[in-house]
Amino acid sequence: METIYTETHNLRDSKTELYGGELVEPFERPSRVHYILDRVREVNLGAVSAPIDFGLNPILAVHDKNFIEFLKSAWSEWQTEGFQGEAMPTVWPARRMSNHIPNHIEGRLGYYALACETTISSGTWEAAYDSAQVALTAAQRLQDGAHSIFALCRPPGHHAAKDMYGGYCFINNAAVAAQKLLDDGAERIAILDVDFHHGNGTQDIFYERNDVLFISLHGDPMNAFPHFLGHADEKGIGDGLGFNSNYPMPPNTDFAEWRAALKSALEDIAEYAPDALIVSLGVDTFETDPISFFKLKSDDFITYGTDIAELKLPTLFVMEGGYDIGEIGLNTVNVLQGFEAGT
Amino acid sequence: METIYTETHNLRDSKTELYGGELVEPFERPSRVHYILDRVREVNLGAVSAPIDFGLNPILAVHDKNFIEFLKSAWSEWQTEGFQGEAMPTVWPARRMSNHIPNHIEGRLGYYALACETTISSGTWEAAYDSAQVALTAAQRLQDGAHSIFALCRPPGHHAAKDMYGGYCFINNAAVAAQKLLDDGAERIAILDVDFHHGNGTQDIFYERNDVLFISLHGDPMNAFPHFLGHADEKGIGDGLGFNSNYPMPPNTDFAEWRAALKSALEDIAEYAPDALIVSLGVDTFETDPISFFKLKSDDFITYGTDIAELKLPTLFVMEGGYDIGEIGLNTVNVLQGFEAGT
Repeated sequence: METIYTETHNLRDSKTELYGGELVEPFERPSRVHYILDRVREVNLGAVSAPIDFGLNPILAVHDKNFIEFLKSAWSEWQTEGFQGEAMPTVWPARRMSNHIPNHIEGRLGYYALACETTISSGTWEAAYDSAQVALTAAQRLQDGAHSIFALCRPPGHHAAKDMYGGYCFINNAAVAAQKLLDDGAERIAILDVDFHHGNGTQDIFYERNDVLFISLHGDPMNAFPHFLGHADEKGIGDGLGFNSNYPMPPNTDFAEWRAALKSALEDIAEYAPDALIVSLGVDTFETDPISFFKLKSDDFITYGTDIAELKLPTLFVMEGGYDIGEIGLNTVNVLQGFEAGT
Repeated sequence: METIYTETHNLRDSKTELYGGELVEPFERPSRVHYILDRVREVNLGAVSAPIDFGLNPILAVHDKNFIEFLKSAWSEWQTEGFQGEAMPTVWPARRMSNHIPNHIEGRLGYYALACETTISSGTWEAAYDSAQVALTAAQRLQDGAHSIFALCRPPGHHAAKDMYGGYCFINNAAVAAQKLLDDGAERIAILDVDFHHGNGTQDIFYERNDVLFISLHGDPMNAFPHFLGHADEKGIGDGLGFNSNYPMPPNTDFAEWRAALKSALEDIAEYAPDALIVSLGVDTFETDPISFFKLKSDDFITYGTDIAELKLPTLFVMEGGYDIGEIGLNTVNVLQGFEAGT
């Protein structure tokens, strides 16, 4: 399996994350991808290739134009105000408040954020843009005939909504890739999100559409980030009704329970008969992940990779979360090797 | 003029505020009130009296019961999770997200917050509860025949909405006092908010009602906190239509411009003919306030205190903001002395 990768992800190297009332070193950091790339090479998974630049239009196909303009300018606007830390919102349009978009960067951060743990810092836009290009290049490989491809994206994307960032995500890489496949001729795309956290951004982008089936397995939002999306009763609206499916699971969910949800999801995907499958691949379901509460073991990642392969679909793996950094390479590549073993 | 005060405000002594991407010493700190009390005594403004405890019911008359329960338990819930800093939300119900109330304290903080600069820390609930009792006691004094009274509340209240805290505010002291006056027989109450920041919480609480006229003079939310309420076109809804009035003003507004807005507001209050006036008194309109952008000078506070007195209404001053701490005593008491001079 070929891996698409660019070292420009290193430009996303923020120093602070708001966690537990403190500013700590971010859980989402460059070394995550270094460990994955090391493992890709160690097992000779396949070629590692640089992305092609598809420009801004495929990003604007799923994101609000003003939001993207904001992401591009936020860091310089913040610096102009003379603030000393990295850019973080402090106030947002809460219940019964106005949706006028403020002029001041402090207000615009809150307008375009859905969470404030994630700072905007020097290089964030550049890294996010290139991360989307990695996903787009991987989509192109599927169009060119590859059966599987690994988009080693960083920063991740699945929490990024049409017009909101947060949860370490700025541009929704999986959504951008899905839209490219559709715009280039596919009729139906399925996105399977196996990251520990609900893929609220991907759900948001496709919630009213039936050309993308979105299925997410995740920690119950009653107990886990993003807390305000990912309930079982969110099934899509309008044309999208029946094309969104959530499997929220409780603390300490083990692989047997998780795999039962996966099997159900895979049946739904098979019935949908998509032209291709995109897997939002987070490995924060791992038992020792520091900010998650599922109990998967390293071998389980091989098993479910093989399960996914049984769909016999062209498959694009997009990297999302995973914060037990010492094991992230093993667990991620286990999924990919499991997939190849089942192909 | 009598001052109602209790030293239990000192229990609200949080160590961190999120500002400019850093955790800094809070602008809203106990010494603010110490300087005001010193000035009250220095000029012999009048007696300084302790509050009476009116219990929780007058607070629940304007706030959501679950929100108040949350405020009471948040700090201990947060500590139980083992977080090391003070309690702060990191994610909230943003656009197109769910309003299910999460179980986990991380999610419930985001549900009940409208801003995240303000931490919940040890003693916050106790101080907020007593601050409301200070306002209630002041309301009782008006009922007992006082022409004017100063509720030296801390923490402040005007950003606290029916079911949300933020902007240094937890319980809306002005709203609690207004509701007590109404419940004890008043037919109409006017609230004039002269704090630099829009009194979004007070507006929220009375937005659909005509028994409270709310008028706020403040920094335009396009450029100033709370950013998402306080526009000129917010005039109330339903029975409340026409009973909410906002005067947003731009950076560098001087006293002449500000006073013109005040005169207009005072005319509207006179026409409304309320039984009493509550003034949400913030002195962060001062020219050197560190987080505001109006240009009032210390003598201007005397002048506008006298302007307010011309209404000849029983008047309850409730302390709100003001962060140039060295001058906060002078500026606050200038308003009260100006009022007395005009009475």
